[in-house]
Amino acid sequence: MPSFTRLIRFLAQDGRIHYGDALLPSGISDMAQATQARVIRGSIFGTHTVTDEIADVRMLLAPLAPEDVRTVRCLGINYALHAKETKLPVPKYPVLFYKPVTSLTGPRDNIPVAPIAQEGQGLDYECELVVVIGKACKDVSEEDALSVVLGYAVGNDVSHREWQMQRGGGQWSLGKGFDGWAPWGPGIVAASQINPLNLAIRTTLNGRQVQSSTTADMIFNVRQAISFLSRGTTLQPGDLIFTGTPSGVGMGRTPKLWLQDGDVVEVSLEGVGSCVNRVTFERERPKL
Amino acid sequence: MPSFTRLIRFLAQDGRIHYGDALLPSGISDMAQATQARVIRGSIFGTHTVTDEIADVRMLLAPLAPEDVRTVRCLGINYALHAKETKLPVPKYPVLFYKPVTSLTGPRDNIPVAPIAQEGQGLDYECELVVVIGKACKDVSEEDALSVVLGYAVGNDVSHREWQMQRGGGQWSLGKGFDGWAPWGPGIVAASQINPLNLAIRTTLNGRQVQSSTTADMIFNVRQAISFLSRGTTLQPGDLIFTGTPSGVGMGRTPKLWLQDGDVVEVSLEGVGSCVNRVTFERERPKL
Repeated sequence: MPSFTRLIRFLAQDGRIHYGDALLPSGISDMAQATQARVIRGSIFGTHTVTDEIADVRMLLAPLAPEDVRTVRCLGINYALHAKETKLPVPKYPVLFYKPVTSLTGPRDNIPVAPIAQEGQGLDYECELVVVIGKACKDVSEEDALSVVLGYAVGNDVSHREWQMQRGGGQWSLGKGFDGWAPWGPGIVAASQINPLNLAIRTTLNGRQVQSSTTADMIFNVRQAISFLSRGTTLQPGDLIFTGTPSGVGMGRTPKLWLQDGDVVEVSLEGVGSCVNRVTFERERPKL
Repeated sequence: MPSFTRLIRFLAQDGRIHYGDALLPSGISDMAQATQARVIRGSIFGTHTVTDEIADVRMLLAPLAPEDVRTVRCLGINYALHAKETKLPVPKYPVLFYKPVTSLTGPRDNIPVAPIAQEGQGLDYECELVVVIGKACKDVSEEDALSVVLGYAVGNDVSHREWQMQRGGGQWSLGKGFDGWAPWGPGIVAASQINPLNLAIRTTLNGRQVQSSTTADMIFNVRQAISFLSRGTTLQPGDLIFTGTPSGVGMGRTPKLWLQDGDVVEVSLEGVGSCVNRVTFERERPKL
């Protein structure tokens, strides 16, 4: 498994994009603070080397290149207090949905809100622990589950409640899958470095704390989630699992608290760091 | 866009795997009948050449290599009579869910039923027209929608109704995403060759016809589906869209008709051909 401790992907001062092992000041664990990294050569999921070449970080990018991510699974209703605020029943099994890889963006990117997502009400944030699968696996036991993990990051499962809950025929995917609706990062801390079962997780909106919990409050913890999702299903290197959000989302508040154009959302996870993203309403539809 | 007419991927008699342009006898459109093909060199979504080299087909494989597929979108409740049989409302917008790429298999592969999917009741078939996206696109108009299509295939959206409807917290993905639960093929007919808006589509189970309809009965046709799904969302080359199934599924019958170990299911689409797959209950969990 990996030889790095804190994997970041970044645009370097010399204009090139690298994977790197973040160099952090003593006592700092937030990978967003990295100004330098040891450049990694080779394949992140195969043979690679953490070199002695040190590069200066100009901008952090999503921790995996788009071509290195395979499938993005997400869990719904995975914290008890969040189940209560959404008025949905506590699930008997993990509740699975997907986001497309095109929803993934970096820890400092804007969250684009396309015209379709400006219709109706309900633009919302969800801080989540993100599991990065490092090894192909199937039917993994809970006991062995952490051995298939490359590492952990934090992500924002941006959601449009009206498209998600009312306009999607009951299926959540449409209202959560728009381009750029899954900022994640700031890097991937190696699985050996932290215990995913008890980490503080929180969201601030324009500097005000709106979610604050611990991953210990998950209904299905990381071991259980990986084991369950691998039943009859091969998990591949580069698969991500967004493991659900705690209470405090905009949908659960009175009055509702919906994201507005220009809002700045920060999701953070203990031992990992934070993603800080600005909500940006698009004026017209870009053509590719 | 493509220089081929009928794209197949196959194991050749010489033991190598190729993409090829199927050579079919005059009057035959079913790519499953191909015994020879012109070998294609290069990238299917980029520069490639249909060569003069003719190879003998030993076995047809899924029409795209796993690494050439990006995201698999599926529509639910997209034929009016199917909406009626499921007792679900006719949707106002296309209902979107996803299958993971690991669910994709070839037109002659077995459908593996893992132990988790032998729990409960409700193993079912769904014949579907599959759209293969050929060009990156976003916010495509209905008028332009077919111009981003590489071609069409037929697929089986294998589903476990109890995991899909009762055990998934209302989200359909879990009961539809097991390894090998999306046989597709037998090849991809180029978009220029057929009109996806009016094609006969059917399923036979152990030789008995159980679904028979036409894509003209879709609630959201191929043009509308592509345009809608591309709103605020980039579709990528190698994305697939399973466009929903007509009536006649096992869930909609009295009594219910669930797939059993050893059953042979054939899904077919006019102008494309058929996938014939045997349901195979797994005795124990394979370890990877």
